[in-house]
Amino acid sequence: MRRPTITDIAQRVGVSKGAVSFALNGRPGVGEATRARILQVAKEMNWRPHSAARALGGARAEAVGLVIARPASTLGVEPFFAQLLSGLQAGLSAQSVALHLLIVEDVEAEMEVYREWASAHRVDGFVMVDLKVRDPRIEVLEEAGTPAVVLGGPGRHGSLSSVWADDRGAMLSVVDYLAALGHRRIAHVAGLPAFRHTQRRMRALHDRAGRLDLEEAVSVPTDFSDSEGAAATRALLSRPRRPTAIVYDSDVMALAGLGVAGEMGVKVPDELSIVAFDDSVLTRIAHPAISALSRDTFAFGKQLAEVMLEVIAEPGLRRDVKTATPRLVVRESTAPPGAWQEN
Amino acid sequence: MRRPTITDIAQRVGVSKGAVSFALNGRPGVGEATRARILQVAKEMNWRPHSAARALGGARAEAVGLVIARPASTLGVEPFFAQLLSGLQAGLSAQSVALHLLIVEDVEAEMEVYREWASAHRVDGFVMVDLKVRDPRIEVLEEAGTPAVVLGGPGRHGSLSSVWADDRGAMLSVVDYLAALGHRRIAHVAGLPAFRHTQRRMRALHDRAGRLDLEEAVSVPTDFSDSEGAAATRALLSRPRRPTAIVYDSDVMALAGLGVAGEMGVKVPDELSIVAFDDSVLTRIAHPAISALSRDTFAFGKQLAEVMLEVIAEPGLRRDVKTATPRLVVRESTAPPGAWQEN
Repeated sequence: MRRPTITDIAQRVGVSKGAVSFALNGRPGVGEATRARILQVAKEMNWRPHSAARALGGARAEAVGLVIARPASTLGVEPFFAQLLSGLQAGLSAQSVALHLLIVEDVEAEMEVYREWASAHRVDGFVMVDLKVRDPRIEVLEEAGTPAVVLGGPGRHGSLSSVWADDRGAMLSVVDYLAALGHRRIAHVAGLPAFRHTQRRMRALHDRAGRLDLEEAVSVPTDFSDSEGAAATRALLSRPRRPTAIVYDSDVMALAGLGVAGEMGVKVPDELSIVAFDDSVLTRIAHPAISALSRDTFAFGKQLAEVMLEVIAEPGLRRDVKTATPRLVVRESTAPPGAWQEN
Repeated sequence: MRRPTITDIAQRVGVSKGAVSFALNGRPGVGEATRARILQVAKEMNWRPHSAARALGGARAEAVGLVIARPASTLGVEPFFAQLLSGLQAGLSAQSVALHLLIVEDVEAEMEVYREWASAHRVDGFVMVDLKVRDPRIEVLEEAGTPAVVLGGPGRHGSLSSVWADDRGAMLSVVDYLAALGHRRIAHVAGLPAFRHTQRRMRALHDRAGRLDLEEAVSVPTDFSDSEGAAATRALLSRPRRPTAIVYDSDVMALAGLGVAGEMGVKVPDELSIVAFDDSVLTRIAHPAISALSRDTFAFGKQLAEVMLEVIAEPGLRRDVKTATPRLVVRESTAPPGAWQEN
């Protein structure tokens, strides 16, 4: 049962879509007799406005708020985030719910916007990203009372719903694989340590290093940028005893690291194995192609949308959804460590 | 002069930000004396709400609508669009204006949403993308009366404002360069012919071919997908007399075409030169790196936002803004045609 549209009504009545729009919105531009006929047919067809009119009537805003405290220029660069947003938009748009997007300077401004949009019923719910270790936004969203879903976890999301991936399990699978190949010195070019998922990855490497009795296991924090990823790689490869494998917290940083290895004459994978968290076209077309932790990020975004819509439909609901754990796709950038470092 | 925030007021009064929020939004949760004191200080500091409250008061919605009739999954894939959206968001967010985003199934649904959001004052303006040769959306936006800016042109955007790039000039610069290298058979793997900018590129190649007396100049339309880009390349390279140069209407298609050349044993650039419209990390890290028409897409998006905000501020205004013409960045995928095809 497709929802009747303005076009359907226009065809049934035999008038232009503009006329139908004027009539349904109570605006001038259509005669009284025609208006009455249009309203009659709209009622017969059980027509209801797409979104906006209902919001004005005090019902739903038919929009979900996403407020991001990141530099806008990074949003189009990171394939993970772009894909996630696409999936989120697809999931919401399927229910004719718009995404209300604002980029702000910092977390303080983000919280202010939460308070204002919530009190003005600007949106029906919030999606919160970049969950931090101690995150003041959780309390603000709890107080605001508008349904909210946190991307990240497990835990630390208060009474709010959450959609998360098992970053710990994903990191353990990579470390186990590299150790099985024979690597004893593994480095981790990490993201921002303030992020909860970064912390979980760092801890996973640290925990496993002891159990596997690795010679070295070090995490180097960065801001996720390709330049800091490159700098961290240069520092690691300048050590007297280099790591033989590096795990990067994003595809963009792995690609930057691959470039540094080339610049320093370190052969990948013969002298250095490289693994990327997050898979994308970047890892696939790199030369050599980069082994990566892969997941369907678009589907992840859609799942986030679905949980958001569930929580909006039933505000008391608290969902805690674990998504599929990223799994390692092995390409050309990983191999057993070569003979060169045995000396 | 920074705008005072809820945080500033909370500090001045010596209460929590939550209390300030409750007081300013007229909600319970703060005592009457404190509420009065907060409102007094807010007035002294010339505080005004971020956005939403003003909209409810009948003023601005502080949001710009973007309705896209494309599959959501493609939005995160095409670097051009992701970068453009980032720039647009950055430009709007700098003025605390949100982007109100909805993906719809087709142009009919898009026009319906324009009518509804306009009549409900859901947004202060619209940005319209993917301008078509005969575009029914122009009239709908003109009728809606909400300020609108069209991405595309020149021309064919009715009484609406427009921001556009000179696709004709960009294509001519590529064809001239390839002809100067000695290419006589040039193919063009084009985008959707319904798009105005695709038409302009096709016509530019056709016009110049005559003047340069090229042996062959053919445009093959596609849907912009990598699979159709690959299929078009296979067909072109299977001809008895192949083109010696192919211009692709996007970086994603150029990359797919490079893959097909490899699969068919056609050497780039010795036997085939490749040029991409739109530059991105994809063209830079390809092997060989792809020569591309480059522009600052993020800046293009910001410019779009600026024109949108100007037109919102002065609704009668009609702007027609030509942005910087993409310029050719030559990398490893272009060279004079080799000797092989002289036989």
